[in-house]
Amino acid sequence: MIELIAFDADDTLWENEVLYIKIQEQLADMLADYGSKEEIQKRLFQTEMKNLPLFGYGIKSFGLSLIETAIQASAQRISVEKIAEILEMIRYMLTYNLGVYPGVEETLKQLAPCYPLIIITKGDLLDQDLKVENSGLRQYFKGIEIVAKKEEQTYRNIMKQYHISPDHFLMVGNSLRSDVLPVVALGGIGVYLENAVAWEHEHHIDPSHQDLPYHTIPSLPELIPLIQKLENQS
Amino acid sequence: MIELIAFDADDTLWENEVLYIKIQEQLADMLADYGSKEEIQKRLFQTEMKNLPLFGYGIKSFGLSLIETAIQASAQRISVEKIAEILEMIRYMLTYNLGVYPGVEETLKQLAPCYPLIIITKGDLLDQDLKVENSGLRQYFKGIEIVAKKEEQTYRNIMKQYHISPDHFLMVGNSLRSDVLPVVALGGIGVYLENAVAWEHEHHIDPSHQDLPYHTIPSLPELIPLIQKLENQS
Repeated sequence: MIELIAFDADDTLWENEVLYIKIQEQLADMLADYGSKEEIQKRLFQTEMKNLPLFGYGIKSFGLSLIETAIQASAQRISVEKIAEILEMIRYMLTYNLGVYPGVEETLKQLAPCYPLIIITKGDLLDQDLKVENSGLRQYFKGIEIVAKKEEQTYRNIMKQYHISPDHFLMVGNSLRSDVLPVVALGGIGVYLENAVAWEHEHHIDPSHQDLPYHTIPSLPELIPLIQKLENQS
Repeated sequence: MIELIAFDADDTLWENEVLYIKIQEQLADMLADYGSKEEIQKRLFQTEMKNLPLFGYGIKSFGLSLIETAIQASAQRISVEKIAEILEMIRYMLTYNLGVYPGVEETLKQLAPCYPLIIITKGDLLDQDLKVENSGLRQYFKGIEIVAKKEEQTYRNIMKQYHISPDHFLMVGNSLRSDVLPVVALGGIGVYLENAVAWEHEHHIDPSHQDLPYHTIPSLPELIPLIQKLENQS
């Protein structure tokens, strides 16, 4: 029944949001003279949302939004030394080795002989390539699809490329908005990895996607019994 | 004989480097107190080269290098207002509508019924997606491959994906280093579009690629008689 299993990457296979949270806190500390932590973080989020259509996802986009927030929140009173520090923070993020979650490699090792596995991830081309390489998980995947957006059309294109009809396609990820609901809307199987950390942006669900059915797992290793159950039902 | 024709995009289908040159001149003007135009541009190029492995290609990478160059060249004496201006320059670049070169659309229109055409372009995912959409040329291409690097392995993967052997693959672009020689090294047909503008980085050729044979055309429409000649020879 299942012919292709696709995985989100950030916060599904490995941690990611924790790094953004850490940097957001550093920015709030840096700008403590110009606003409370909540004010600074709200302003950063607004800047990110404003920039998203033009900048896209990824660390460099985030970095440019950090600089813009620092300048605006301080009404241009921030020092150039601090801007230089933000450049260092961006560099730190780009070289940071994100931890693969426990049980992920074992899960992939068990699934890879039975199903073709792919990654579908948003973000910056080079960032995401580097993360896949550094994760040590590259060997388990038949393909890595790095996309600018995760919408129904994105998944339709990928299914076409892999010659898979929606009902044989399973996608697992930690964002209902991006990983799960667009796939279910096309007739695919969506699996929501209920993860403690998720970016605020990912909470805004397309209204036409409300009430669509999906499966929930608390951690990636739980994907294996779920797939066994689905295969037995079909 | 030819079964797939691939085109570089920036400075092959549409102008691109002119925009970078314009922004480089603006930066040199902004930093005129801290060095000559040549010094500033040399420093920017060095910063870009240092950042390339970590930042990759594209406007956001270039933008971060602009900010870094402004801070370093001025020994942190540049004002925060100027950094805010650089952010505006980055935004300007991202929204700038690059002109398609004369004769490009006619050439694609003539070739598309006879051969599958694809774009292979380096750069930022979202930047390049937007440029293809804005160009009005999307309809002529079977696929758009946005890649982090253009090396032999990149072309090997694409040929595999399209089920094409190297001797049936033709690639045309304005960079010998990235578009032409890696393809020729694999046994493909490389066509060099001799273009007045090219980024300095693209002049550094892989030593193992020296002396490889390729075809040269002065403008894209000249691709059609070249292909006719190649097909008649085979």
